[in-house]
Amino acid sequence: MDELVNAVPTAETKPHRRTVFFISDRTGITAEMLGNSMLVQFEQFQFDRRTIPFVDSNEKVEDVIRQINQLAERDGQRPIVFTSIVDDEAAEHVRSEANALTLDVFQVFISPLEAELQMRSSHAAGRSHGIANSHEYFARMEAINFTQAHDDGATTRDLAKAQVILVGVSRCGKTPTSLYLALQFGIRTANFPLTPDDFVDRKLPASIRMHKDRLFGLTIQAERLREIREERRPNSPYASLENCRFEVREAEHLMERERIPMVDTTTKSIEEIATTVLHRTGLRRTVY
Amino acid sequence: MDELVNAVPTAETKPHRRTVFFISDRTGITAEMLGNSMLVQFEQFQFDRRTIPFVDSNEKVEDVIRQINQLAERDGQRPIVFTSIVDDEAAEHVRSEANALTLDVFQVFISPLEAELQMRSSHAAGRSHGIANSHEYFARMEAINFTQAHDDGATTRDLAKAQVILVGVSRCGKTPTSLYLALQFGIRTANFPLTPDDFVDRKLPASIRMHKDRLFGLTIQAERLREIREERRPNSPYASLENCRFEVREAEHLMERERIPMVDTTTKSIEEIATTVLHRTGLRRTVY
Repeated sequence: MDELVNAVPTAETKPHRRTVFFISDRTGITAEMLGNSMLVQFEQFQFDRRTIPFVDSNEKVEDVIRQINQLAERDGQRPIVFTSIVDDEAAEHVRSEANALTLDVFQVFISPLEAELQMRSSHAAGRSHGIANSHEYFARMEAINFTQAHDDGATTRDLAKAQVILVGVSRCGKTPTSLYLALQFGIRTANFPLTPDDFVDRKLPASIRMHKDRLFGLTIQAERLREIREERRPNSPYASLENCRFEVREAEHLMERERIPMVDTTTKSIEEIATTVLHRTGLRRTVY
Repeated sequence: MDELVNAVPTAETKPHRRTVFFISDRTGITAEMLGNSMLVQFEQFQFDRRTIPFVDSNEKVEDVIRQINQLAERDGQRPIVFTSIVDDEAAEHVRSEANALTLDVFQVFISPLEAELQMRSSHAAGRSHGIANSHEYFARMEAINFTQAHDDGATTRDLAKAQVILVGVSRCGKTPTSLYLALQFGIRTANFPLTPDDFVDRKLPASIRMHKDRLFGLTIQAERLREIREERRPNSPYASLENCRFEVREAEHLMERERIPMVDTTTKSIEEIATTVLHRTGLRRTVY
């Protein structure tokens, strides 16, 4: 048990514990996301998570079953296993041999889909998160390159090609949101800081004014902004609450005057901010 | 029907069609990923996908049901609906009122989990992809900032803080993989190009030699590299097949000599490359 205690230093705050596996013949990202969206509903539990991707041979399946059964014995209780193994036989083998509660994504949903579509599924592994086709691949790469090049107002070249341009004060979440929009949804995203210079002028920077139809504002509560800026430049005038209040107020006024849509990022994750931007602009998302 | 034909220009290549909804009271990212991993198993179908996030009020639920039923009527066949709505009542309402095959992630998996853990789930929306806690938030932001700052060998400052340093020839996938590792898994990732200068010296660049234990190599087939480079600089010596062959061969020799683990990115998606790096380095992933 020492091993577990060492691995999970915060364990003492949670009364219950359980080992969880995410198993996939590909990346395991789908199984993890699905599993985590369930597990967060059980707050009193401390879950020790293990992801095993690329389980795509008989040996690897046997090895995974061995690992699960070892931990079942060590823990004195069976682990929870989320699997997204496409191969029928391998998945069935895990379900029957692993001493675990096995929640099998494919088993549950493929049958009703086959009945509905009146067609057998191809049961081929690795189609999701694979390179679907060269066109999609290049579009995604182009979005990532574009977004990298247009971070923080670095260049105004080709700004007309941006699908959305995020604006807001320094450290309100523009960069992570831009990168997420590009990587996850293939959206060419630029971002541009609003700075005290713009507040003196009381208008948008000249280089983005002509693209007003594609601007989207991020804002944040001054107290939270101070925390984030303190982390970066402790005790600076830049991070002071007074300055954060001033910048946020002026930026919000500017965006309101210019009728730029706005989202408050204070309590939102990157995923939530990015989804809000997509949803409100009506941009078409691609999931890779 | 005209509307649909216009919206899906490649429809003629697929014999069957179906409208698919992804519905969530939060971002819908989990429902999309799960749904897409199923749908790619039905290659002969053309799916017209619609994601509706933030369905978190009675009015929005009613509106979604209306949209589904309108498309059921328009298409002459019921849509497929993947939902990850946490709220029991809302989810039940969609299942009973929407004219659709509704595949409800929570309905299927929460009950067996509750039985296994002998506890009721909190049925609270939006815990996944939310800001779990401030510590995690800052760690993720730090990983993103670090990775941005250490793209393409831009700086060697703080390189000792990198959890992994990707190396490889220009355009083999270092930047997107680095960004994905940071955003999706919270890994501080640097990347460093291997260039013809290094091949003349036949050794690693001085600035990364001391971090050899954290290097991970990306490689790629020369023919594929040429395609990617052609897209960027058409008809350049840089993009020529001859040069691509030379660089890839020399880079692989260098990495083999230095015993740097290596993955071939040619047919892999960003998700697969990133997962491979994690899996083989044993770095701990966090899913946000």
